[in-house]
Formats: sequence, structure tokens, C-alpha cells
Amino acid sequence: MAKNITTRATDYSQWYVDVVREAKLADYAPVKGCMVIRPNGYAIWEAIQQQLDRMFKDTGHVNAYFPLLIPQSFLEKEAEHVKGFALECAVVTHSGLERVEGEARLRPKGKLEEAYVIRPTSETVIWAMYKNWIQSYRDLPLLINQWANVYRWELRTRLFLRTAEFLWQEGHTAHATAQEAREETLRMLGVYRTFAEEYMAMPVIAGEKSEGQKFPGAVSTYAIEAMMQDRKALQAGTSHFLGQNFARAFDVTFQNEKNELDYVWATSWGVSTRLVGALVMIHADDDGMVIPPRLAQRPVYAVPIYRSAAEREQVVSTLRKLLDDLRGQHGLRAVLDDRDTATPGFKFAEGELFGYPLRLEVGPRDLAANQVIATLRHNREKIKLPLPQAAAEVPRLLDRMQADLFARAKKNMDEHTREINSYDEFKKFIADDGGFALVHWAGTSEDEKRIQEETKATLRVIPLDGAVEKGTCILTGRESNRRVVFAKAY
Amino acid sequence: MAKNITTRATDYSQWYVDVVREAKLADYAPVKGCMVIRPNGYAIWEAIQQQLDRMFKDTGHVNAYFPLLIPQSFLEKEAEHVKGFALECAVVTHSGLERVEGEARLRPKGKLEEAYVIRPTSETVIWAMYKNWIQSYRDLPLLINQWANVYRWELRTRLFLRTAEFLWQEGHTAHATAQEAREETLRMLGVYRTFAEEYMAMPVIAGEKSEGQKFPGAVSTYAIEAMMQDRKALQAGTSHFLGQNFARAFDVTFQNEKNELDYVWATSWGVSTRLVGALVMIHADDDGMVIPPRLAQRPVYAVPIYRSAAEREQVVSTLRKLLDDLRGQHGLRAVLDDRDTATPGFKFAEGELFGYPLRLEVGPRDLAANQVIATLRHNREKIKLPLPQAAAEVPRLLDRMQADLFARAKKNMDEHTREINSYDEFKKFIADDGGFALVHWAGTSEDEKRIQEETKATLRVIPLDGAVEKGTCILTGRESNRRVVFAKAY
Repeated sequence: MAKNITTRATDYSQWYVDVVREAKLADYAPVKGCMVIRPNGYAIWEAIQQQLDRMFKDTGHVNAYFPLLIPQSFLEKEAEHVKGFALECAVVTHSGLERVEGEARLRPKGKLEEAYVIRPTSETVIWAMYKNWIQSYRDLPLLINQWANVYRWELRTRLFLRTAEFLWQEGHTAHATAQEAREETLRMLGVYRTFAEEYMAMPVIAGEKSEGQKFPGAVSTYAIEAMMQDRKALQAGTSHFLGQNFARAFDVTFQNEKNELDYVWATSWGVSTRLVGALVMIHADDDGMVIPPRLAQRPVYAVPIYRSAAEREQVVSTLRKLLDDLRGQHGLRAVLDDRDTATPGFKFAEGELFGYPLRLEVGPRDLAANQVIATLRHNREKIKLPLPQAAAEVPRLLDRMQADLFARAKKNMDEHTREINSYDEFKKFIADDGGFALVHWAGTSEDEKRIQEETKATLRVIPLDGAVEKGTCILTGRESNRRVVFAKAY
Repeated sequence: MAKNITTRATDYSQWYVDVVREAKLADYAPVKGCMVIRPNGYAIWEAIQQQLDRMFKDTGHVNAYFPLLIPQSFLEKEAEHVKGFALECAVVTHSGLERVEGEARLRPKGKLEEAYVIRPTSETVIWAMYKNWIQSYRDLPLLINQWANVYRWELRTRLFLRTAEFLWQEGHTAHATAQEAREETLRMLGVYRTFAEEYMAMPVIAGEKSEGQKFPGAVSTYAIEAMMQDRKALQAGTSHFLGQNFARAFDVTFQNEKNELDYVWATSWGVSTRLVGALVMIHADDDGMVIPPRLAQRPVYAVPIYRSAAEREQVVSTLRKLLDDLRGQHGLRAVLDDRDTATPGFKFAEGELFGYPLRLEVGPRDLAANQVIATLRHNREKIKLPLPQAAAEVPRLLDRMQADLFARAKKNMDEHTREINSYDEFKKFIADDGGFALVHWAGTSEDEKRIQEETKATLRVIPLDGAVEKGTCILTGRESNRRVVFAKAY
């Protein structure tokens, strides 16, 4: 157990915060509800971005950038349709600060005629532009994604998982037909699923959200849900079929192939820096972070062991050669920790804390035996690699670790996913160990609220690949055709 | 001449706006002073980011992310030292919007105890964090960069070159010694210079800013300056040696190797989306954008020529095969424009407007001759390539174009850079053709202001590689040791 990290068994919630802070993934910012993403955490977000961006481009999408500020009048349009509309967001009202005469104090100056909000999401400003850009079916589909920061005040914050400002991507696409838009919605859900499983080593359940849980502007909302080590669910990505709702609100029409005017069909989809928090919650342990090899910018951490300058030169040059081969032959980047100011023991602990997937160590005795010692982060397995084969073996070990992480998380999910057939059994399951309860459901949004009040569990998804099966709703006793997933969630 | 684009000869300023809008690089946003970076423009910014990021990482830097909002109290600290302090920035004063009862109107609600500003730059919040992260010389150097959006109200806006919100990177490094920080400042200036010349095909003069032109918080400011087609200068990147100024303001000390407490030495450096505007101003022509091959995400634009479905199939499959080879063998990505809804002539014009470096066309006659026609964007040169050699030839043509673009811009800069030895000659030079005036200078900041008022020219840089040469200042007649660059600037 690393010092300064509470164990998961003692206090899971504190363990999470300790790992995030001690592994230098993020820090509290001097701005209420905000975080600073430190280099160790940002490197993971960059790896996530690079891979997702590649997958977005391979499916025909391009990136663009829309303004940070949204005029109040854009939201008034939306507010007309929403009863009791209120928005928790950062409101810009002035165009500067000036010094109060004779004091050190500053005060806002230049009150703006119209207030702006910092985007909590960009639908309004993006659809205002789409109105100018779309005239004919020839302009469709429009497949645009944006990488951006967004802002929403939050009362209870949790690093990565819930902060006022966070980083995300938001895809906003426009199509000529409903079918095309529906296909796009599911295609992007599939991209998220593939990314979660193959890169984050995080098994997920993909499905549709219930009426009560969907995005207000959407016709249908889809999501991927993963199970964390404490068996709570975490929503890791959403994809919405928006129908013609936004096109109608922003009056975005196009001339179709039959020369008729029609409203455009829309989708939106997004994931955020909360995925970094998900990685911590699903793979980290009591010694610190564990980064899946495919999301590690530098998957290899190399520690030379020496007592004299002569030994240092030998082991460091051996490691350097090996790391050059890893980069040249396999494109694998590494950290060579040749600091003289830290002991090997300190480096081992720090390497584990930071979550480097694979550690390589070489000492004088290893040199004599013509070998290097590899240690996998997730299970501490030590493997002696003959030096001539090491460069070829390391990628294989990393692949094995990637598969292990997925299998371990899948095992956790499978062991704690249970078919449950009565409300009493359900309440006990959620109150005890918890996990994903697969239940027959035919309730309303009101019924969902009752379940949430009584058990804190919510309807996570109606699985897309769930089998058709007759049954009765655990709460209402009404007939149901398939099971849905209920769980407590982040 | 492309329709909708004013020629450079008619109105250079309007030509610039026309190219940016017609080539779909950017559009005016519905937010005062802001722009939308459209996919064609954002693709260039992504190419800039990817290459610079690689160069930053190769010089030991890591990325992080700091909050968008800066508490007012952070700026009060700064304001204490600045007479007549006033900041033109977006001020957040409320935590939400609510509906006015019975009206569609919204109003701000939840006045904040302390106001925040949207970062115009991040020194304050970054140095507030550095105070927590730096204790000992072992924590140094700290080499952090941030990719972010920033906000500064601007009265006169110009797409890419001057907008309220823009995207940039800001490097903020902390060092144990002044010498190390000075080396870092010049190293990053060198990175910018290499990037400008080798990737943007934009020759620059690297040098130091005068006392009057430097960043207020800096001990010394360095910049690269390029000459646009209208012979005005454009500052394309800056690098600052900040001494211990920020460390003192934010009380960031460290234990040095002798166990003494000392203030940290700092640098900062940045470039922004204005580089996209620079690319337009330096390479584009009356037909539209010209993207340097090394910054084109898809340097090749392929147009099949056909009149029947059978011809279509043949030419498209020939092009597809060639593009696959280009991607597989050279990693070059391409656009295959096989739309049936547009004529080849329309496609040629659009390809030129968008600035694809190299166009490939294949028609039935070319197939019979086993050839493909390549056309270079910048000089319209048409080259017949035998199909079997085409995949090998295209990268060579792109390299040649990259070199041509640099040479053309260099020629423009050299032809309009002149050694000038009297103030009368200087005034005439600036008023007539304009360009870079190399003059002896030994004036004060006041003298610089006088020159600016009388001629609109400013001291751009004191060149780093300028030769030592005795002379007399063109304005004051005082002795001078080297020439400096004066020019009108964006």
C-alpha cells in the first residue's frame, strides 16, 4: 500500500481522491468547483483524444471550433418551451475590470447590453451557424465534431467525474433523412463502445435511456455504462438522435432531392474528461494508478540499478539501447528514470503510483546474466527477459496486460450483474453488495423516481443486445418484453 | 480569378476576408468579435498543433490544463503594481440565468461573491499552482505547455488575426537558474522559427523586442516576424524571459542545491490561431487559399473525369488504387471528389479555392495513355505522370512545392527589406512600397512612439543574427552598433 493512499476497503471514495492527487493526475484549482489537469492526467486525456479523433475521422467526421460564449437571446428561444427554465451556468455581464480609485480593489466595468453564458454545451450556437451553412441536400450530411471546454456550476464536485469546467468532445451532425441520422446515432455509440472496450479495457453495456433519463432535446438517447470497482455504474458516453427538434427551434431547412423544403435531421454525441476518472475507478489499486497500455503515452518505465559511476554507465547504456529498439521497432515510448537523486526503491514506488504499465530494471547482476527484469503493473508479475529478445517481448507483455485488465473488469461486471425478479430481492441486492440488476421493467418516469428515492438506484440502460424475454415488471407487475439495467451510479 | 474574391490589387484587405470566408476557413460568429473556425480552417490549425506539439515534446515539455476562469483577487495582486490598471476581458458575475415571471426574457441570477474573468492569458492561475508544486531544485525544471482558448475584447476584429476569443498554446516554464531560463527562452524561439520556415514555408526574422514593445511582465521578449504579401510585418510567435518577476509576485521559492531559498526563474512562449491568418496572407492568391503541403491534412485532391457509368468506374478505381498507394507507401492522405452532382470544372475551381496543394485528374484519354495529370496549386504547373511512377512522384512534387512557397516568400521579403540611413528616406520607404526598413537605432520608447505617429511603422525586432556595424540612429543621430527592423504591422 502506497503511503498517502487510503485503501479501497477502508474508504473507496477517499481512495479515489487520493489516487487522483498522489498520482498527480489532477489537483483542486483555486477556482470553486474547478480542477487543474496535471501532466500525468492530461497525457491520458491526450491519448484518449488521439484515438477517438482517429475513429471520428475514419467515420467521415471533421473538427471545427465554435465560440465559447452564447448570447442570452439564444437561450430565451429555448426557455420559451421549457417551464420553470433555469440554467446553472457562468454568466458574463461586463467587458472589463478597473481599479477602484485609491484602493487595490477591482470592480467590473462596462456593463454589456446583452449577457452571455459560457457554453454548457454548444447546440444553440452550432445550429445558428448550420442555418447559414445548409441550403440543399448537397450540403448534407454535415458531420462536425468539436473538442472544447464547457462550464456548468456544480455544488458537489469530484475530480474528473463532476467539475464545473470540463473538457469534452461534442459531435453535432445534420442529415437529410431520419434513417441516416438514426444510423449515425448508433454508429457513434458503437465507436464509443469499441473505444471503451479495446482502448480503455473497460467492458460496457450499450443501450437506450428511458424516457426519464434521456437528454431533454432528444427523441432517443443511447449510452454506454460501465461498472466501477465499487460496483456502481458510470455513464461513459452518450449519443442522441435529436429528430428535427433543433432544426425546428433554429429554423434549419434544406431543399431535398425532390426540390421540397424539409427540416434537417440531427444527432449529437459526446464523451468527456470524466473518462480519465473512469480509468482510475476501474483499474487503479491501493498502490496508485494503473494505465491501460494502449492509453499510456509512455507505457514503459525503465529503472537502472547501480552503485558506482562505472556500473551506472553500463546499465544506463544497456537500457538506452533497448528503449531505442522499442521506439524504432514498435513505436513504443518510454521513460528512462536515471535520476541520481532518487533510490531504485523510491522509483519503483513512484512508477507504480503513476501507473506505468510495464517497468524494466537492469542491474549489474542482470547484465552478467544478459537479462532485463520486466514487471507488469497490474499484477506485479516479474518476468526475466533475455536481452536479445526483450524488444520483441515487451509489446507482447503489454498486449497481455491490456487483455488482462479487460478480463479482470469483465469478471467484476459479470459477477455483480444479476437477473432479479422481485422488488424485495432488488432492494436487498442494491442495499447489499450492489451491482447491475437486470430486471423486467414496464414502469413510468414516476415509477423510476420512486425506485430512486427508495433505493438510490436508477435505470441505466435498456440494453441493445438484450434478448427478447417475457416477464413482469418488478414494480408494477405489468407485462415486459426485455430486461433493463438498474444500478446506483456516479 | 475566383468569383466572390476581390483581387489583391483591388483591395488587399477585402481580398483577405474574401479568401477566409470563401475558402470556408472561418466565419463570423453571432457573438460580437468572435469567429467560428470552420472545418477547412480547423484542419490547418490541427496540423499546426500536431507538429508544434511534437516539437515541444521532443524538447522535454508536457501538456496540462488550467482553469478557464481567474478569480478577481488574483488580478488585484497584479493591479497593485500597475498604474491605471484596467483589463478588457469578459467578467463573470452571476451563477445562472432565470426566466422573468410571465415573460420570455431571461435575467442573471445568483450574484457571485467574487467576480471571475475569462483568462486573457494564464500566468496568474498557473503560478498560483506552481507555488504548490515547486519546493526543491528536484522539482525543476518544470516544463509545461497548455493548449487553450483565451478571451480579450477587441474593438476592431479581423478573422484569425484579431478576434475576442482565439485558440493558442502558452508554455510556462520554471527553472533553477537565470541561465537555464534564458536558454529555454531562446530554444523555444528557435522551435518557432524552425516551424515557421520548414512547415509554414514562411521566412522570418528572429530577434528581441525593444523596451517599448516587450511584454510588460518580461525582462526580455523575443519574437519571429514575417513579411506578408502586402509587405506588412506579422508577429508570428513570442518567447519571454520573465526573470523572477512572476515568482516574486506569486511567492514561488525553492530550496536550491546549496540548501538556500531562492525565487524560481521563468519563461513563457506562445503562438495562436493567428498563424492560420498568416498562412493566408503569405501564400494565398486571387483564386483562393494555398496550403503548404506539410500543413495540409489531405495534400492531394483527386478528380475523376467521366461521361458514362462505365468510364466512371474505370477512372475512379484507377484513382482509388493510386490514393491507396500514396497512403500506404507515403502516409499521404487525399480527398477523392467523386460527386456526381458537380462538374470537373466546378471541382477544379473549388479545389483551388480550398487550397489543396496538388490536384490529380484522370479521364478516359489519360487511362488510354496510362497517365495521370498532376497540377500544383501555387503555380498551376501541369505534369503528366506515368501511372506506374505516380505514387513515387507525388511526394517529390509536394516537396518541390513546399520549397517553392518558401523561396517565393523569401524573395518577396528580400526584395522589400532595405538598409536605410536617413529619416527622410525612411519616411518615403514606409509611405511608398513599404517593407522591412533596416535602420540604425538608438532611440527611447518615446522616440519609437514618435516614429509610429509619423509613419505608422513600429520597431519589430532587433535581429539576433544581425551583424555588428557602427552607425548613427536615423532619428536621434546617436551612435548605434547594429541595425533594427522597422515596418508597418498587423
